[in-house]
Amino acid sequence: MAKNLEISFLLDFYGEMLTQKQREVIEYYYNDDLSLSEIADNEGITRQGVRDAIKRAEAQLLEMEERLGLARRFREVQGGLEEILEASRAILEYNRKYVYAPVLEQQATRIEETAERLSR
Amino acid sequence: MAKNLEISFLLDFYGEMLTQKQREVIEYYYNDDLSLSEIADNEGITRQGVRDAIKRAEAQLLEMEERLGLARRFREVQGGLEEILEASRAILEYNRKYVYAPVLEQQATRIEETAERLSR
Repeated sequence: MAKNLEISFLLDFYGEMLTQKQREVIEYYYNDDLSLSEIADNEGITRQGVRDAIKRAEAQLLEMEERLGLARRFREVQGGLEEILEASRAILEYNRKYVYAPVLEQQATRIEETAERLSR
Repeated sequence: MAKNLEISFLLDFYGEMLTQKQREVIEYYYNDDLSLSEIADNEGITRQGVRDAIKRAEAQLLEMEERLGLARRFREVQGGLEEILEASRAILEYNRKYVYAPVLEQQATRIEETAERLSR
């Protein structure tokens, strides 16, 4: 059973919408990297039962993203914030080398700090 | 029945997770501003049925936000982007008045455009 890297990401977003049992199983598999047999032992169900539970949870996460698209939107924002960070650092560097204007230092630092905060 | 302004906002986020019928009813009420009686006529159900359907849909939207918190997160990002926009405009203004450095113009414009794009 191939691991879908996208699933880990969606799990962070939509995991809270799964049942507690589903979340337990899929987190063992994706976050803790347990094998199907290990999860089966922990949960007291069959290996096939684990496989089915993971498949169902994966389908639900993908369906939620298909409907809501919030993970995609979040990724776009993260990409934009990286670009903003880069530009604010270029401004700071230029100002510190050639201009020495406190206004520029202050405003570019404000941008840098805000973008960093939102990136977390 | 008091309208909860928060609901319109959550509807944009999580509306796609409601059933089609639920979405129809709650959108009539919140987006199109129809009365309960008008919606009842459109849907061929009782006024009380409409009221119950809206209450259930509201509860589901609030529950999703309670679990996922993505609307709150999105609002934070929007607030941060406004701050970034303001700072980038202050840099542009200062540069155009006193410094005239193409690098600053370019990088601050890049920040402004990115923040505007992400705010939409």
